[in-house]
Amino acid sequence: MPRPVPIPHVVHAKTRVIYGDTDQMGVVYYANYFRYFELSRSEFFRSLGGSYVDLERDGFGLPVVEANARYRSPAKYDDVIAIEVRLAELNRASLRFDYVVRRESSGDELVTGHTVHACVGPDGKPAGLPKSVMQLLAAPKA
Amino acid sequence: MPRPVPIPHVVHAKTRVIYGDTDQMGVVYYANYFRYFELSRSEFFRSLGGSYVDLERDGFGLPVVEANARYRSPAKYDDVIAIEVRLAELNRASLRFDYVVRRESSGDELVTGHTVHACVGPDGKPAGLPKSVMQLLAAPKA
Amino acid sequence: MPRPVPIPHVVHAKTRVIYGDTDQMGVVYYANYFRYFELSRSEFFRSLGGSYVDLERDGFGLPVVEANARYRSPAKYDDVIAIEVRLAELNRASLRFDYVVRRESSGDELVTGHTVHACVGPDGKPAGLPKSVMQLLAAPKA
Amino acid sequence: MPRPVPIPHVVHAKTRVIYGDTDQMGVVYYANYFRYFELSRSEFFRSLGGSYVDLERDGFGLPVVEANARYRSPAKYDDVIAIEVRLAELNRASLRFDYVVRRESSGDELVTGHTVHACVGPDGKPAGLPKSVMQLLAAPKA
Repeated sequence: MPRPVPIPHVVHAKTRVIYGDTDQMGVVYYANYFRYFELSRSEFFRSLGGSYVDLERDGFGLPVVEANARYRSPAKYDDVIAIEVRLAELNRASLRFDYVVRRESSGDELVTGHTVHACVGPDGKPAGLPKSVMQLLAAPKA
Repeated sequence: MPRPVPIPHVVHAKTRVIYGDTDQMGVVYYANYFRYFELSRSEFFRSLGGSYVDLERDGFGLPVVEANARYRSPAKYDDVIAIEVRLAELNRASLRFDYVVRRESSGDELVTGHTVHACVGPDGKPAGLPKSVMQLLAAPKA
Repeated sequence: MPRPVPIPHVVHAKTRVIYGDTDQMGVVYYANYFRYFELSRSEFFRSLGGSYVDLERDGFGLPVVEANARYRSPAKYDDVIAIEVRLAELNRASLRFDYVVRRESSGDELVTGHTVHACVGPDGKPAGLPKSVMQLLAAPKA
Repeated sequence: MPRPVPIPHVVHAKTRVIYGDTDQMGVVYYANYFRYFELSRSEFFRSLGGSYVDLERDGFGLPVVEANARYRSPAKYDDVIAIEVRLAELNRASLRFDYVVRRESSGDELVTGHTVHACVGPDGKPAGLPKSVMQLLAAPKA
């Protein structure tokens, strides 16, 4: 049963669209929003302090097991986009992030999505999230 | 109401994983499977003959409105992967493709997913799929 | 004969390395430095004010005709990298940018490189740089 | 002093341009040609048999130390492109590949370029190419 996250952890990241992100339709290529999702996810983990680096150092990983995006309005070259990431679900051995990508200038919602991650232990097999990470994620954010 | 596709259109594509597709976990980066999906989708449209090029020439487009992937097992550098794409749903103004990505050597299912596409007319607004394309897609494949 | 740029235009950009930028060697994939180059180049044009957008609006373009990179030391996941771009040469119908990519924390030079761009007019053929852009680029920067 | 490669090793690879390779100029994004270069380079190493995998298994690597491309004519969506890779220089501790990218349908040369690779040993430091690889590369190709 998903354990409710008591105080939502919400983190924001920003990036600017380059030519290399667009395709010949003149808009950001659909796969690249998953790069933006990752950018915000990295920011999320960084906001937790050293814990994610510790996680990796101890041989744990959080591979993506599901990824989803809904495209409402396209981002274009030179747009500054803001990505909001929220820890939406925290389970014993997995977690889920929800994302909202907005054009910063207008605030328009461009893309929403989520990713689900399973915890993998040092032996490469499914594992419970380490206690230290669990406590950090479940705790109200200072 | 989704119109059932009488005879399934199934198309296969193949590619080999390069370094540039992988990330530091030693496996294909999760966003890149959407590139593989597109590769097979292009192959699908090509298999229809000139119709998709016609579609674009007439100013129509089929932008992605939803994309989803489930990651079961990772593809690695130098793997040959086979992508199966299937027209799963055909509506008046949208369609859905389902994908299965397999490692060719073992046949293992690595990733499954789908994309939903809306039809957009020459004015950039939602439009019904042109009749010529509709007939082609709905017809049994020769 | 290259016209010397009287006051060097130097612009800086920054980005953070994500998983999607790395490959299975655990370092940034070599092609991705050209994305970083572009990021700084976009920043360069933006620093000129509306002129580049004007350039494109008038149907001109500056496609890359040569790109070069020398890799001295690798950038890694989560590194903040700083890209310095310098207008190194300004000719009637082409220009050249030089780049230095550094790890921000250490100041280490990671990659140096350059790109050469030709000016293309509204008819898709080589053209002289529009006077307004030329004056802006050749002038001392405020 | 570069040792002349007695019988040129030339290998060909092919790929088809997808949307994800293009940018809003309607042509392949300049950085992506380095992905195509890598594709052909992988093919090159594969053509040598198990030796490159052996090289990596023994802890050796061949990181890129220089990359260069000259863009003559653009590749477009759906183009099949053929990449020719040639071992152009073989030294004690480095090698150089030359590339020619052509549109298959017309044979037009689109992009030429080269990469230089240094050999790195199991300790991460510059090393001479292992003898087994050296012999394979220097020998006339069967």
